[in-house]
Amino acid sequence: MAKTSSTSAVSGNSYVIPAGNDVDKLSHFIEDNKNQQVVAVQGLGFVGTVMSLVVANSDNGEYAVIGVDKATEDSYWKIAEINTGICPIVSSDPLVTEFFENTKAKQNFYATYDSMAFSFADVIIVDINLDVTKIKDHKGNIESYDVPLEGFKKAIESIGQVCKEDVLILVETTVPPGTCQKVVYPILVENLKHRGLPSNKFKLGHSYERVMPGPNYVNSIKNFYRVYSGINDESADAVEKFLKTIISTDEYPLTRLKTTESTEMAKVLENSYRAMNISFAIEWSRFAENSGVDLYEVVDAIRLRPTHANLMYPGIGVGGYCLTKDPLMASWSSEQFFGLESGLQSSVKAVENNDKMPMYSFEFVINILKQHDKKSTKIGLLGVAYGPGIGDTRFSPVEDFYNRLSSHFNKIKCQDPYVSLWAELNIEIETSLEVFLADSFDILIVTTGHRDYLNNNIIYELIERSAKEMIIIDTVGLLDLHKLPSHFSQNKNFYVLGVGHNEE
Amino acid sequence: MAKTSSTSAVSGNSYVIPAGNDVDKLSHFIEDNKNQQVVAVQGLGFVGTVMSLVVANSDNGEYAVIGVDKATEDSYWKIAEINTGICPIVSSDPLVTEFFENTKAKQNFYATYDSMAFSFADVIIVDINLDVTKIKDHKGNIESYDVPLEGFKKAIESIGQVCKEDVLILVETTVPPGTCQKVVYPILVENLKHRGLPSNKFKLGHSYERVMPGPNYVNSIKNFYRVYSGINDESADAVEKFLKTIISTDEYPLTRLKTTESTEMAKVLENSYRAMNISFAIEWSRFAENSGVDLYEVVDAIRLRPTHANLMYPGIGVGGYCLTKDPLMASWSSEQFFGLESGLQSSVKAVENNDKMPMYSFEFVINILKQHDKKSTKIGLLGVAYGPGIGDTRFSPVEDFYNRLSSHFNKIKCQDPYVSLWAELNIEIETSLEVFLADSFDILIVTTGHRDYLNNNIIYELIERSAKEMIIIDTVGLLDLHKLPSHFSQNKNFYVLGVGHNEE
Repeated sequence: MAKTSSTSAVSGNSYVIPAGNDVDKLSHFIEDNKNQQVVAVQGLGFVGTVMSLVVANSDNGEYAVIGVDKATEDSYWKIAEINTGICPIVSSDPLVTEFFENTKAKQNFYATYDSMAFSFADVIIVDINLDVTKIKDHKGNIESYDVPLEGFKKAIESIGQVCKEDVLILVETTVPPGTCQKVVYPILVENLKHRGLPSNKFKLGHSYERVMPGPNYVNSIKNFYRVYSGINDESADAVEKFLKTIISTDEYPLTRLKTTESTEMAKVLENSYRAMNISFAIEWSRFAENSGVDLYEVVDAIRLRPTHANLMYPGIGVGGYCLTKDPLMASWSSEQFFGLESGLQSSVKAVENNDKMPMYSFEFVINILKQHDKKSTKIGLLGVAYGPGIGDTRFSPVEDFYNRLSSHFNKIKCQDPYVSLWAELNIEIETSLEVFLADSFDILIVTTGHRDYLNNNIIYELIERSAKEMIIIDTVGLLDLHKLPSHFSQNKNFYVLGVGHNEE
Repeated sequence: MAKTSSTSAVSGNSYVIPAGNDVDKLSHFIEDNKNQQVVAVQGLGFVGTVMSLVVANSDNGEYAVIGVDKATEDSYWKIAEINTGICPIVSSDPLVTEFFENTKAKQNFYATYDSMAFSFADVIIVDINLDVTKIKDHKGNIESYDVPLEGFKKAIESIGQVCKEDVLILVETTVPPGTCQKVVYPILVENLKHRGLPSNKFKLGHSYERVMPGPNYVNSIKNFYRVYSGINDESADAVEKFLKTIISTDEYPLTRLKTTESTEMAKVLENSYRAMNISFAIEWSRFAENSGVDLYEVVDAIRLRPTHANLMYPGIGVGGYCLTKDPLMASWSSEQFFGLESGLQSSVKAVENNDKMPMYSFEFVINILKQHDKKSTKIGLLGVAYGPGIGDTRFSPVEDFYNRLSSHFNKIKCQDPYVSLWAELNIEIETSLEVFLADSFDILIVTTGHRDYLNNNIIYELIERSAKEMIIIDTVGLLDLHKLPSHFSQNKNFYVLGVGHNEE
C-alpha cells in the first residue's frame, strides 16, 4: 500500500500526500506572475531547490519559478514546505535562507507535484537524479554496474507531453555522455510529433552545475564557472542568454563547447578526476602508517608546488551524490553508447577504491581498539554528513563505517551540527557538541571534518572539561595534537588516519 | 674488452679514458681554492651537473665544487669537457651556459673520476641515478619490477671509505622511502668505524630536487620550493644551513619534515601523483575520439576550476627519468621495506598505463595511415625529446612510437631542435626545422610539443611553403588548425590525438 504521508527531514512535520491535480493553484500562480517568464525546475533535490532559488532571485527579477517534484513519501514534504514558507534545506550558507525569504516576499516561487507545470514554462531546467547501480563482491570489488534510464526517460516524457513547442529545455542532471542526443532529443521529438506540433522549434541544451552544498552553496551556482552546449546553435544561444541572467558571467565567463557530448563528458570527467585523486590517498595512507610517516605533513609540503596544489589528504572516504557514481556513468557511456570495449577502467577503479575507504578506516580503528570490550565501551562519532559544513548524508562514508563499527561495539552515539535525523539509518543525531561531549565517552572518533568543531577551539575546551580518560581517533585529520590537553600523545591515546608511528 | 674512449653527446669529441688516480690535479684544485668550502657532487647527470653549477654560483661565492662521475664510456666525456671548458649540457635555459662560464672565470668547478675527491669535501651531494627494472608481458603489462641497490650501495661506500668524519652528506637521489635510514646510514657508520673514526659526527640528510630540464633548468633548483630532512636534528640543521646558501629561500621557504622517510616519500608521492594524472588522460582520449568530442576543449573548460587546474591534456606519452620509475620505487619500498603486501597498485597501474601511451598513439596513427604504402610513404617526426623545450631523450615515449612505426614504414626521418644524435637509437637528428621541412613528406607527425615550432608561426609558414599535399597528425595537441593552410581540415588531413570526429 502506498504511503499517504511524507515527513520532513528538516522540520519533522508530516504532510498528507494529495491526490488529483494541482492545476487550479498553478493557474493562480501563473496569473499572479503574468508579467514574468516562467521557469520550471524538474527535481527539488540538493541542486534543483537551490537552482530554483537562484533563478527566482535573478538580478532583473524577470522569472517566476515552479519547482516540480513527485508526490511521494520521500519528496512531497519539500513541495509542502516550500508552499507553506519553510525552507526545505538546512545549510551553513546564510544566502539560502535569505534567497528563500525573498521568494516569499515576491511570491515568485511555487512548488508542485503536477507535471502540467511544464505547460506554462518558457524554460525547463532538468535537475532530477540519475543513479547508478553497483553490484559488488564480498571484498567490495565492483563486479558490475548499470545506469537504469527508465525513470529519467519518463521524466523527459512528462515534459514532452505538455511543453510549449518553442520551450528551452536545459538539462543539468549528470548523465552518461551522449544522453541529450541519444535519449532526450528523440523523446521530445516523438512527443511533439505525437501532439501534432512542429518538432524543430524547441531548444535543447546541456549545462552542468557544480553545486557544492556547504557555506558557498548559492554562490557555487551564481558565482562560478559554467560550461554549456546546445544540440544546435540556436539552442546554445538560448542557453547562453538564459545563463547570463542568473550567473555572474562577467566575473566567471561561460565556456561554450561544440556538442552536448562535450559538456556531458566534461562533467563526468571532472568528477572522475577528483574521485581518482581522492582514491590515490588511500594506498599512501597505509604506506605512511607503516613507515612512521605523517602523510598530512608530506601532503602539505607537496602542495606548495602550484602543479600539485590539488593533492588530497587521507581520510575516511569520499561520499556525496556525485563522486561515487559519475565515474561509473562515464564508463557506462563509453561502453554502451560509444563502443569502448573495456570502459574506463581507471575511473571504475577509483570508485571501487573510494568505496573501500570506510572499510580501511574501520580496520585502522579496530586495530587500535582490539582490546576494548564490545558491551561496555562507549564510542562517540563526530560527524555523519559526507563532508565538512554540510547536512547531506547521502552516500556518506560514515554510514559504512558506522555499520561496521556497530557490529563490534554496542554503545555508539553520533553527533552532527547539520543533521538531526540520519535518514539512511533512521538514527537520531545530537546536534549540540556541548550536550554530546557531556556524555563521557571512552572513545571519540572524528568522522566528518566540520570546521564548526574548531570554532573558538570549542572542541578542545569540551575535551579538556571531560573528566574521563579517553582515546581520540581522527579519521579526517581535523584535530591538532598541540591544542589537545597535554596528556594526549600521538599514537598513545591520539591516533590520526594516515599518520604513522615515528619510533624516534 | 673495456672501451678506452668516451664520446661526447654534445660536441661529438672523443676522449681517452684515463687510468690511475687524479690526486695531483685534485690537490691543485683544492690548493687554488683553499679559502673556500669544498662541495663534492656525486653524479654528473641531468641533476648533478646543474646542481654543481648552482652551488659554484652561490650568492656569497663560498664554494669550490668537485663533480665526480665514473671513468666509463658513457660518463667520462662529461668530466673531460667540464675540465676543458665545454658545457656538457645543451639546454634552452641561457642560465646554464652563463653559470658554466662563471665557473670558468672563477676556476671553482673541477670534475674528476677519482673518489678521493670525497676526502676533501665538507659537503657531499649524492646525485647519482638509481634505476628500476621492469619486466613486462607481451601486452605491455608490468609483471614484476625491482630496485637493484648494489650500485647505489657501492657509491655510498666510496664516500664512507674516504670522507671526513664530520662531513654533511646530502642525498638528492630519488630513493625508495627508507633508504637513508636502512641503507645509507649503516654503510657510513660501518665504514667510519672500520677506519677507526667516530661514527656519530657525520650529518646525513635528504632533500629532493625538483629539477625540470628545460627553459627554467637552473631556476628549478635555485628558485623553487625544497623539502628536506635529517637523520637527527643536527643533520637537519646542517642541511637547512647549506640549502639557504644556494636557494632563494626568502621567496621559496624551505619545508622541514620530521624524518628522512617523510622526504623520501614526498618525492615519490609527488611523481606518482603526476604519473597518475597523466595516465588518467589515456582512457579519456579513446572515449573522446569515439564520441566525437574534442578532449582539449573539454580539458580547457575544466581547468578553469582552480581545483582542477592541473588536469592533463592527452598526448603521446610520459617520458623522462622520474615519472616512469618513481611510482614503482615507492611501491617497491612499501613492500620490501615496510611490509605492505600488495604494494601501491594505483602507482604501478599508472606507470603501466603511461608506458602504453606510445602504443596507443601508434594505433591512432596506423588507423589513419592503413592505406599508405610501406615502402614509398615518407614520414617526418617532429620531436624526439621526452618533453617540450628539452634535449633529454631518456625514456622518451617517442622511442617506442618510432620503433613501432618503423616496423610499418621504411622512410621515417626525425627532427628535434635540441637533439642532434638520438643516443638510444643511434640516429642522427636534423635540428633545423627549415631544412627538415624542405624535404617534402607525405605524413608529418608532431611527437614532441616543442614551443619553438610555434615561434613566429614558423611551422605554419614552412608547411604553407611545402608544395606537397600531406597529412598532419598531432599527437600532442600543439598545432592550431586555424593557422594551417586552408585546405587542412579536421579528421580529413589533420588529426589530433584525443579529438574525435564530430559528425556535424
